[in-house]
Amino acid sequence: MIENKNQSKTDLSQLGEFGLIEHLTHNFSIQQPSTVKGIGDDAAVLSFNDKKTLVSTDLLVEGVHFDLAYMPLKHLGYKAIVVNLSDICAMNAVPTQVTVSIAISNRFPLEALEELYEGIALACSYYKVDLIGGDTTSSQKGLIISVTAVGQTDESEIVYRSGAQDKDLLVVTGDVGSAYMGLQVLEREKQVYLVNPNSQPDLTPYDYIIERQLKPEARTDIKKLLADLEVKPTAMIDVSDGLSSEIMHICKQSKVGCNLYEEKIPLDPQFINTCEEFNIDSTTIAINGGEDYELLFTIKMEDYEKIKGNPNFTIIGHITPEAEGVHLITRANTKIPLKARGWNTLQNNED
Amino acid sequence: MIENKNQSKTDLSQLGEFGLIEHLTHNFSIQQPSTVKGIGDDAAVLSFNDKKTLVSTDLLVEGVHFDLAYMPLKHLGYKAIVVNLSDICAMNAVPTQVTVSIAISNRFPLEALEELYEGIALACSYYKVDLIGGDTTSSQKGLIISVTAVGQTDESEIVYRSGAQDKDLLVVTGDVGSAYMGLQVLEREKQVYLVNPNSQPDLTPYDYIIERQLKPEARTDIKKLLADLEVKPTAMIDVSDGLSSEIMHICKQSKVGCNLYEEKIPLDPQFINTCEEFNIDSTTIAINGGEDYELLFTIKMEDYEKIKGNPNFTIIGHITPEAEGVHLITRANTKIPLKARGWNTLQNNED
Repeated sequence: MIENKNQSKTDLSQLGEFGLIEHLTHNFSIQQPSTVKGIGDDAAVLSFNDKKTLVSTDLLVEGVHFDLAYMPLKHLGYKAIVVNLSDICAMNAVPTQVTVSIAISNRFPLEALEELYEGIALACSYYKVDLIGGDTTSSQKGLIISVTAVGQTDESEIVYRSGAQDKDLLVVTGDVGSAYMGLQVLEREKQVYLVNPNSQPDLTPYDYIIERQLKPEARTDIKKLLADLEVKPTAMIDVSDGLSSEIMHICKQSKVGCNLYEEKIPLDPQFINTCEEFNIDSTTIAINGGEDYELLFTIKMEDYEKIKGNPNFTIIGHITPEAEGVHLITRANTKIPLKARGWNTLQNNED
Repeated sequence: MIENKNQSKTDLSQLGEFGLIEHLTHNFSIQQPSTVKGIGDDAAVLSFNDKKTLVSTDLLVEGVHFDLAYMPLKHLGYKAIVVNLSDICAMNAVPTQVTVSIAISNRFPLEALEELYEGIALACSYYKVDLIGGDTTSSQKGLIISVTAVGQTDESEIVYRSGAQDKDLLVVTGDVGSAYMGLQVLEREKQVYLVNPNSQPDLTPYDYIIERQLKPEARTDIKKLLADLEVKPTAMIDVSDGLSSEIMHICKQSKVGCNLYEEKIPLDPQFINTCEEFNIDSTTIAINGGEDYELLFTIKMEDYEKIKGNPNFTIIGHITPEAEGVHLITRANTKIPLKARGWNTLQNNED
């Protein structure tokens, strides 16, 4: 689909590295007052006055983090940005700039990269962050995308993973598990396509969960929602590797334990239906599936009334002393130790 | 050499991603007062008060930017940091933090990554920059390293590529071309080794140029040297792609022309000897060879006396009006248009 067999496509080597960066980024405009100098010099220059500066980075590898057979390049570009902005949101800060570096093999024509950058541009525009730099080089195999996000906030507003305390409530935004089941549907359709390329699948029953996989959003809205409610989380993280893995991170860094209640975990009806169709236990997926990019945080018990009943938030558990460990309390009221299975990309190795 | 055939080596998948990051980075200490929070949360937190924040990023790909047949992993780690610090220096700023993301195929055992991080640690320690974050994932093929460097300085001290003006003098630090010839020697030794693995080459006559290739340094010293001389460059860039390419960048962004004098270009005797041995024209290499990581800058003519005779700097040309173009003035006093050949990694593609 994206191999450079069509001779009307533009070969990357015709442009050279500098021509390529210029070509791909000349449409990006500066939106942040803190961007003094963006692309085009040795380094970008940012100015944050007395705010704190946040930096987060992620590396996405074809065949490990994404499969171009079902991930359109425009979506991939969008998602690569979102994943990083989500990390800045997870600090209760505001994302302001990104750098994007890509390594590509020459099977990609220019038009493929343009599609990728269309998605990057869409995310930058939607989230009002500036693309301020990057690097473009060739790879030996496949596409590799490295994104670094920069953000800012007042020091007093930053929320670390390490602040959770005994009796705090555990809260999650949105719903979880859908992105993972979206991926399962896409994987299945890919297999069907490989057998019968003329099949026209009806993906309408899966539209929400597929969108969660292909076009996730960063919860940049949560900082303001919480501020308006006058709630400051005690610890926060984003759900990229799965609820279980993120809870373990908070507990480890805060030196606390946790009880997570199975019946409280927010699930979308489409997610539940698809789990049934695939004959997979929905709780297992909700806990271990990743890439939801929702925010998971803890709040003081006295903030319960402020959060209760708010459709943006679900209280799913509470913090315990460290010695009590980290557990899932099932619907049958049994207590199961939680394990951080999450995504382990290091086991996907194919070399 | 580094394939995981030795069963005493540790397989990466045993550690998992989080264990791996922790294992590789637990020895890094915080050295910069501006580092509020380093590795271990969703994002790092930096605090620069009223300084400007600089961000630069680079992606290094095995088989494109480096060859592990002659690049020891420790050197590679060191160089990956230096390359990015050099970009911050090229803005006349002080590098303060780095993030390092790596994608690796499972042919690398843990011990190989430890070696890589030893080099990263050495560079961080030598240059007093803090490692504040990163990402570790698997690749389909080879090793990929993405580094983002952060720096700071007062707004008034930042030097862009775009400030050169007619009659300004063109100055370079150190000498150029050596890193490229070091690479040629290493390439030759690799070929010899492939034919006869028992050959013991004497690389003493090439020690300087090989070190320039394997262990380049970022010119973090230049900012202070210039400040002490009370010289502020009008434009600046680092020599990563070759003198010719960098001059073209300054001229394009400053909308000026330039005359570069062949006889003025600073060359190391070992570089000249090796060019003779390889029967290559030294000027061609000095102009087009990359990876010297020296600084190239322009200064006002009235600063001539302050720079003249200083062993750290060589005046190699002067800026002209844009219409006069960019030229090399040869020893024979002929005028040749300069072309930005530099490195074009996009033509190295092997997929």
